[in-house]
Amino acid sequence: MEDAQVTTNEIQASIVCSATHYDKQRTPAGVIAEYLGLNPQPTFNVEAVCASSGVGLRIGWSFISSGLHDTVAVVGFQKMTELSSAEVQEVMGRSGDVMWESPFGTTMPAYFALYAKSHMQKYGTTEEQLAKVAVKNHFYATKNPKAMFQEEITVEDVLKSRMIASPLKRYDCCANSDGAACIILASEDVARKVTDTPVWVAGLGLASSPMALTSRGPSYASFDCSVNAAKQAYGMARIKPKDVDIAEVHDCFTITEIINYEDLGFCERGRGGKLAEEGQTYLGSKIPVNIDGGLLAKGHPVGATGASQIRTLVKQLRGEAGETQVNGAEIGLAHNLGGIGMYCAVTILKT
Amino acid sequence: MEDAQVTTNEIQASIVCSATHYDKQRTPAGVIAEYLGLNPQPTFNVEAVCASSGVGLRIGWSFISSGLHDTVAVVGFQKMTELSSAEVQEVMGRSGDVMWESPFGTTMPAYFALYAKSHMQKYGTTEEQLAKVAVKNHFYATKNPKAMFQEEITVEDVLKSRMIASPLKRYDCCANSDGAACIILASEDVARKVTDTPVWVAGLGLASSPMALTSRGPSYASFDCSVNAAKQAYGMARIKPKDVDIAEVHDCFTITEIINYEDLGFCERGRGGKLAEEGQTYLGSKIPVNIDGGLLAKGHPVGATGASQIRTLVKQLRGEAGETQVNGAEIGLAHNLGGIGMYCAVTILKT
Repeated sequence: MEDAQVTTNEIQASIVCSATHYDKQRTPAGVIAEYLGLNPQPTFNVEAVCASSGVGLRIGWSFISSGLHDTVAVVGFQKMTELSSAEVQEVMGRSGDVMWESPFGTTMPAYFALYAKSHMQKYGTTEEQLAKVAVKNHFYATKNPKAMFQEEITVEDVLKSRMIASPLKRYDCCANSDGAACIILASEDVARKVTDTPVWVAGLGLASSPMALTSRGPSYASFDCSVNAAKQAYGMARIKPKDVDIAEVHDCFTITEIINYEDLGFCERGRGGKLAEEGQTYLGSKIPVNIDGGLLAKGHPVGATGASQIRTLVKQLRGEAGETQVNGAEIGLAHNLGGIGMYCAVTILKT
Repeated sequence: MEDAQVTTNEIQASIVCSATHYDKQRTPAGVIAEYLGLNPQPTFNVEAVCASSGVGLRIGWSFISSGLHDTVAVVGFQKMTELSSAEVQEVMGRSGDVMWESPFGTTMPAYFALYAKSHMQKYGTTEEQLAKVAVKNHFYATKNPKAMFQEEITVEDVLKSRMIASPLKRYDCCANSDGAACIILASEDVARKVTDTPVWVAGLGLASSPMALTSRGPSYASFDCSVNAAKQAYGMARIKPKDVDIAEVHDCFTITEIINYEDLGFCERGRGGKLAEEGQTYLGSKIPVNIDGGLLAKGHPVGATGASQIRTLVKQLRGEAGETQVNGAEIGLAHNLGGIGMYCAVTILKT
């Protein structure tokens, strides 16, 4: 609110975004609106697992575009450390189909390991290429004071780290985190009044895929919902993938970032591993991706992630990103994947 | 979908509304969209406890008004019987503040009992007046084949029923239910194409109150969020309370219906008990309220309730309500309260 120069009175609605079952408090919007002083304005909860605040942004945009409200706060948060790590693992698994899949051991890393195996088999992607993603994101986390992990790692560190779900090792996975991020959305009139450096929502995409893996396929080397959401967002923004100056993509696991490169059109299908290997997603290369540390190293407090991606893009598009500033950044893309890939929100921002 | 004459392909987004923590399946939108054949369209979950689908309707309306979509399904559901009744009681209590209130025994009936005591003390409302609400709603449930309870009860039955949280007895409380209801929203163009009897959304209101009871008061005889949401909805629809031909109000407990009469302006402040006593909310009286059985007797599958209220109003406004038809009904109001009164959605429909 300080950054956007708005007060609680001026915020006409708040949208609270989080994945459920992590904390004892049900229906957190009730508490959050009270603590933030946002009563009696409308508030409620939105949930699309890891894509919760990406969806929240879409709803906030609609509230403003439809004329219901002028200024909306999208509050993403998660407090995962109230549960033990075994409990988190179980709760997360239940984001898959609880009838036919999660009872048989499909925890979150297991789901994504399956995608990794499929991608490796189909395109020859290697464990070293996966490791390169973790190395990049940990490198940039050292430049982000808000990142959870603050030490550089090497490809060897990743390869030698503890196996979680083959081929994904400790450093191929994001960690359980606590955190929060907030986006203030405003109508054009309000935005022009409160700031000289507004950032505009140019494109929105939201799509779904079937929950059950058996209803997807035949291969598991791409997320259909990402492809569809990206297509919508590019269309609405009237841009092409090559026009994106900086991207925040959902790297819950290293394999996810590689698949995202392809699903978002940053490289040809099957070339995602190569893009990582060649360092083409570092600052100054083809397309800088997750140069705030990403989910892998900045942290992944589930409901906060989509809003945190937007925060990074806003800083970049305003030219306030310091050491990691992309020169002349005008177009940013946020890709926010939910659960085991059944929801995806893509947002394109412009200066 | 059959009723609205639309197919799954034509539904451009689905909004799944439910309260959380009742079933093993997290993030139900993923499963529901898959089972209904609504992939790859956008889908996600919305939660405002008992007001979830009232909020879902507002979001769907915004998606259409903002031009994002033409046709949206708002799916409300709840499956409460997977848990034991003790577990339901605990989960429900956690819809209050878990730091300062629910650990001290504030289950859902206890919260509303406090409002009942306050209303009785302030306005002289009696247990017999509360009972009259239950008698009316059970009477109308016998005329609704979809209602959970199908037997008439008397004031004496209510007064003699088991004490739950003084002064609320068994028949003053709704029961744990399983159920679902779905609203198909469409743009004006689509609506005119698929039906000769469209029902229009004329007014929307959504407001919040602080979660903690200590942050409300000084009295507990009204729900501020109801008053604020109603004011917004009446303003947008440009009508007054006396213009409403039929109302669906949130009677999770008998006292709630009485307070709602006052909060919605159907009678003067403090006269709600009298309105019930005089039978002024029966069909053919001042203002017919919950003549489908209400939450008390139709059932209250939490996330489905708001959508079910809309279903009743749509039937009435189309003149399809049979034995309980309000003659010449043109304006209907749905009042959907969330949790312990921290969210309220009011919707006004017109022919």
